[in-house]
Amino acid sequence: MARSKATLRTWLSCPGLLACFLLGFLAGWFTKLTEKNPNSSDVDQNVRQKLVAEMKAENIKQFLRSFTKLPHLAGTEQNLLLAKQIQGQWKEFGLDSVELVHYDVLLSYPNETQPNYISVIDDQGNEIFNTSLFEPPPQGYENVTDILPPYNAFSAQGVPEADLLYVNYGRTEDFFKLEREMGINCTGKIVIARYGKIFRGNKVKNAILAGARGIILYSDPADYCAPGVDAYPDGWNLPGGGVQRGNVLNLNGAGDPLTPGYPAKEYTFRYKVNEGVGIPKIPVHPIGYHDAEVLLRAMGGPAAPDSSWKGSLNVSYNIGPGFADNSSTRKVRMHVHTNNKITRIYNVIGILRGALEPDRYIILGGHRDSWVFGGIDPTTGAAVLQEIVRSFGKMKMEGNYTLRVDCTPLLYKLVYNLTKEILSPDESYENKSLYESWLEKDPATENNSYPRINKLGSGSDFEAYFQRLGIASGRVRYTKNRKADKFSNYPVYHTVYETFELVEKFYDPTFKKQLTIAQLRGKLVYELADSQVIPFDCRDYGEALKGYSNRIYKLAKKHEEQLKRYKVSFDPLFSAVVNFSKAAAEFHRRLEQVDKKNPVAVRIMNDQLMFTERAFIDPLGLPGRKFYRHIIFAPSSHNKYAGESFPGIYDAMFDIESKADQHEAWEEVKRQISIAAFTVQAAAGTLQEVA
Amino acid sequence: MARSKATLRTWLSCPGLLACFLLGFLAGWFTKLTEKNPNSSDVDQNVRQKLVAEMKAENIKQFLRSFTKLPHLAGTEQNLLLAKQIQGQWKEFGLDSVELVHYDVLLSYPNETQPNYISVIDDQGNEIFNTSLFEPPPQGYENVTDILPPYNAFSAQGVPEADLLYVNYGRTEDFFKLEREMGINCTGKIVIARYGKIFRGNKVKNAILAGARGIILYSDPADYCAPGVDAYPDGWNLPGGGVQRGNVLNLNGAGDPLTPGYPAKEYTFRYKVNEGVGIPKIPVHPIGYHDAEVLLRAMGGPAAPDSSWKGSLNVSYNIGPGFADNSSTRKVRMHVHTNNKITRIYNVIGILRGALEPDRYIILGGHRDSWVFGGIDPTTGAAVLQEIVRSFGKMKMEGNYTLRVDCTPLLYKLVYNLTKEILSPDESYENKSLYESWLEKDPATENNSYPRINKLGSGSDFEAYFQRLGIASGRVRYTKNRKADKFSNYPVYHTVYETFELVEKFYDPTFKKQLTIAQLRGKLVYELADSQVIPFDCRDYGEALKGYSNRIYKLAKKHEEQLKRYKVSFDPLFSAVVNFSKAAAEFHRRLEQVDKKNPVAVRIMNDQLMFTERAFIDPLGLPGRKFYRHIIFAPSSHNKYAGESFPGIYDAMFDIESKADQHEAWEEVKRQISIAAFTVQAAAGTLQEVA
Repeated sequence: MARSKATLRTWLSCPGLLACFLLGFLAGWFTKLTEKNPNSSDVDQNVRQKLVAEMKAENIKQFLRSFTKLPHLAGTEQNLLLAKQIQGQWKEFGLDSVELVHYDVLLSYPNETQPNYISVIDDQGNEIFNTSLFEPPPQGYENVTDILPPYNAFSAQGVPEADLLYVNYGRTEDFFKLEREMGINCTGKIVIARYGKIFRGNKVKNAILAGARGIILYSDPADYCAPGVDAYPDGWNLPGGGVQRGNVLNLNGAGDPLTPGYPAKEYTFRYKVNEGVGIPKIPVHPIGYHDAEVLLRAMGGPAAPDSSWKGSLNVSYNIGPGFADNSSTRKVRMHVHTNNKITRIYNVIGILRGALEPDRYIILGGHRDSWVFGGIDPTTGAAVLQEIVRSFGKMKMEGNYTLRVDCTPLLYKLVYNLTKEILSPDESYENKSLYESWLEKDPATENNSYPRINKLGSGSDFEAYFQRLGIASGRVRYTKNRKADKFSNYPVYHTVYETFELVEKFYDPTFKKQLTIAQLRGKLVYELADSQVIPFDCRDYGEALKGYSNRIYKLAKKHEEQLKRYKVSFDPLFSAVVNFSKAAAEFHRRLEQVDKKNPVAVRIMNDQLMFTERAFIDPLGLPGRKFYRHIIFAPSSHNKYAGESFPGIYDAMFDIESKADQHEAWEEVKRQISIAAFTVQAAAGTLQEVA
Repeated sequence: MARSKATLRTWLSCPGLLACFLLGFLAGWFTKLTEKNPNSSDVDQNVRQKLVAEMKAENIKQFLRSFTKLPHLAGTEQNLLLAKQIQGQWKEFGLDSVELVHYDVLLSYPNETQPNYISVIDDQGNEIFNTSLFEPPPQGYENVTDILPPYNAFSAQGVPEADLLYVNYGRTEDFFKLEREMGINCTGKIVIARYGKIFRGNKVKNAILAGARGIILYSDPADYCAPGVDAYPDGWNLPGGGVQRGNVLNLNGAGDPLTPGYPAKEYTFRYKVNEGVGIPKIPVHPIGYHDAEVLLRAMGGPAAPDSSWKGSLNVSYNIGPGFADNSSTRKVRMHVHTNNKITRIYNVIGILRGALEPDRYIILGGHRDSWVFGGIDPTTGAAVLQEIVRSFGKMKMEGNYTLRVDCTPLLYKLVYNLTKEILSPDESYENKSLYESWLEKDPATENNSYPRINKLGSGSDFEAYFQRLGIASGRVRYTKNRKADKFSNYPVYHTVYETFELVEKFYDPTFKKQLTIAQLRGKLVYELADSQVIPFDCRDYGEALKGYSNRIYKLAKKHEEQLKRYKVSFDPLFSAVVNFSKAAAEFHRRLEQVDKKNPVAVRIMNDQLMFTERAFIDPLGLPGRKFYRHIIFAPSSHNKYAGESFPGIYDAMFDIESKADQHEAWEEVKRQISIAAFTVQAAAGTLQEVA
């Protein structure tokens, strides 16, 4: 679903501000109820049941309908109106306070007078084919204004002209194959990559590193058209004229590109755009598969290096430079005139404080700005619904979709417990729990007696909280079957065809999947807000650390000879992990015996639970990525969407055999192991008995 | 007094460890007393009086006597024995727990077989004069072994030979004068600087930046011999053969040079010594004034640029290159063979936990390793006495010495209040309070109705706590009259003549000054440990910020034209400071009304008090000094000992007129103002009402 990530990230990048983001009204209501009966667990039970009973699929549907009538891109008037509407509703729902807070961030818009497109040119320089300037609007939306044409936000401006080179998905390994196995040099070329597999910003970064002068991104039917499914509006496949928008920044957690590390306020120093963080230096432009087919057909030439590189455009791909009829040196010319512009955006900040400890609150992520929808749900709170809405496009693919949870290990147990209390919305799982359908459809690889929970990567709103600040975070959505992950996202992702009707017709006609997500998120909010003892389980972190340390060691063992030669030992890390697990076990033993009537004793242990995630933060950050400071998890360096465990060690070992100075390279591995060992050991210290 | 700073700094550089350092036993005792009567303020009053009554000057004297019999340099067997002795005594005194914790840090020792010295050589390269290899031992210590000869720890090894150039104190402004006003190039020279005014590491750094091949440090009688006072042992002046030792690192808060940012444990990755932080690349060696006179006399030549450059060696200083008899190109040759060595050191960690909140404790700084003394006092606790001992050498100069306090503004009020309760130990102030003698002898410049309190710089144990981590800190000592600060430190500082007898004979024969410091420190510990509400006053921080912002603005106004041309505004900073002051005033109004019987309500406000200092930490650190992260205070870039306020802005404006790109230079000033404004504003947020 359409959203401007730059905007969102900026909202979340205020290290000194205790901004409380999008809290559900229900938790406020509960807090007030429990204030009257602080010690009654009957009341708790009752309230939790009421929470689920109060949620209505029809309400979710109506919110979605309301929020998706008009485009509301970040930085537009329409998005400000929506902010005010949401602010008003949240106040009605009963949040303690709801404020609009503004930031002035760098955004990116197409030039209204000079459209972006790509031409095939003949040897005279004549443009003999131009890609389309807009997407055909879906039925019922023909008269809507303010639909921006497809573009890649934050592209450099430029009109480069060069041979075209196909680079498959544009992943690190794709460029390795081209440059190392096939000896093909990308320097000075315009490259064309298909969307999918990894975050598009990583594709652009790889192209720049390879020396390309421009990059074209397109959606291949192999990735965006499921067999036997019609194109929208008759089915949920991507039409040939549909184009995926999206930003192509490589921010590595910096927030607003011009104010890295600080909130983008009036008084904040701004770097110049050419000094900004992660802004690509080459033009980038997205196209649909109708246009892509013309470009790729014109290339012709030898076949792709292997069948995995072939999309489904029925084109004999030329992975080398130049076009089929080499006699006339036909090239492509990109026209990109997109403007970067510092623009005011508005954050709706709802605050809900603890009844007993008003200085403590939960942070849930969510965002408002998008093109076709957004929302709040009166029965689960704004964040819960907005997260549902953001996520639901990924539901109901192939009839085998299921729950997907990415979260800190601290939340594993709570998520498992709560999903056991919620009914599954899946077909043929009537009267079974969400846990049961989830477990059956997506068991964990390591231990299939539990449903899979994924590592947190990035690409969404929790990034600054988790990866920069070490605040326990999680995300919950319904998603496709991962075993058939051929289709990246849902086909019409970030196109004009992402409409209310798409959801209503194809993804969740009964809105039951969204209701289920609302129920789970609502319960998570409730438990985190209302439990006297924060429902984190540190023992699961110990288990996760054990798994990650074994995994990274296994990777290292592929270089057994080097481990010996350079005296690389993982023992301190293993030892720290054992110490953490012991400290966690002892902590939870003590926690069972804590005097619940002593509020300071309880708060002390809650502080330890809260600071456990914080203890994994290294103020020095990861190498070259100072805003990714979590030593256990980081967005993958090769795909921002994915999470990597022990990222410092992982990156130090990545492609290590190709490094010129092997001694230096393995010294860096040793340094990273030592940092990881220290950090895990320090986290164990956080859990130690204080008296 | 002798101490190895590298060692100490390492002890304090463990960001993830909650190491509690040197806590006095008295606070433990009080805690236990008050545990029995938690709500009795009579008991509190009683205990506080007992605290002061219990302290005996004679005890302090005996501890000092005991700890100063033998040298106990960092990393030596003798220092480990002392650690064990202190550990045992602390246990007896009743601390909750006392542990020895080891670190393996880079230390520096002279080579036992190749002594360090400096030669004057003739044009044949013959060494016609050599500086002395050791200090004549003081009476009574002739048979003591293990006295290391004078050296500058962490000097590079080398035998450079070059013309000698006098650079006064080796300050930034001294090199400016040489290079800019006199057009003298230091490249390739060996420079000689007199000790004093600034931290010796800054002198060495300046020499390296100027291109020198070596630097000699000496103690000039103008700085180290008071008129009318005899040299030790007949008086407290520095004998001609005495030499000040000391490290010459430029660590900028990194801790151990080989493990910057992480504790120096077995598993920690170590950089190579040539990659270590702040280790000088040129030889450095210290000499006394007897030897210095020979070197300076040999130089002869023109007079110093002005009288301020003249020491008192009765030599006509040649500030240019070469020696008096230029016909024979006489040069100096340095011989430095000092070795860096990773060495195990031991930290004595005493822990004393809060009775009501066992997860909270006070951190006091102190160190054990030194050459001639160290100590714990049974009546004030180990830290309190050790800080006294470290400080007392600065007492009783010219009969006008007084209390000196450097601390966070949060502690101003507490320090003022407590000094009003303590009797002054100063002559002719009998029956007056410490506050009164202090105020009379050293009133604040800005407002002379208060005694002066200084900004925290560095050069001692609080550095990592305050400058890196943002933990409220302070130091208390007796010191010389600052209006006559001609004598840097006390003359025999870091020499073999720093003995027990020096103190007993000259500085504090009755040990009353040290007793006073013990009383003040003891009361500070007591109040910080025992008060239900932490006795910090945030309003004083607001006042301090106001003063600092006015001061930095005044500095900026010297460039009024540039401020206009480059649109530099301090308004956001002023506005943030006003907001902080308002938030502080409102916070303290609420604090007066807090329900003291509600332990969570009290803890919430205590958390806010505690986190106020933390809020001034910027995780990104200051430019080029990532371990100095406090935005309000930092060690001066030109003298580590001194504190600088708004150091980011100050450094950006320093010598700005000489910068090539004026636009860029003023952009950096603007960036630093914006960071300061944000940080102060965020700190104001920390004080806001939570409910």
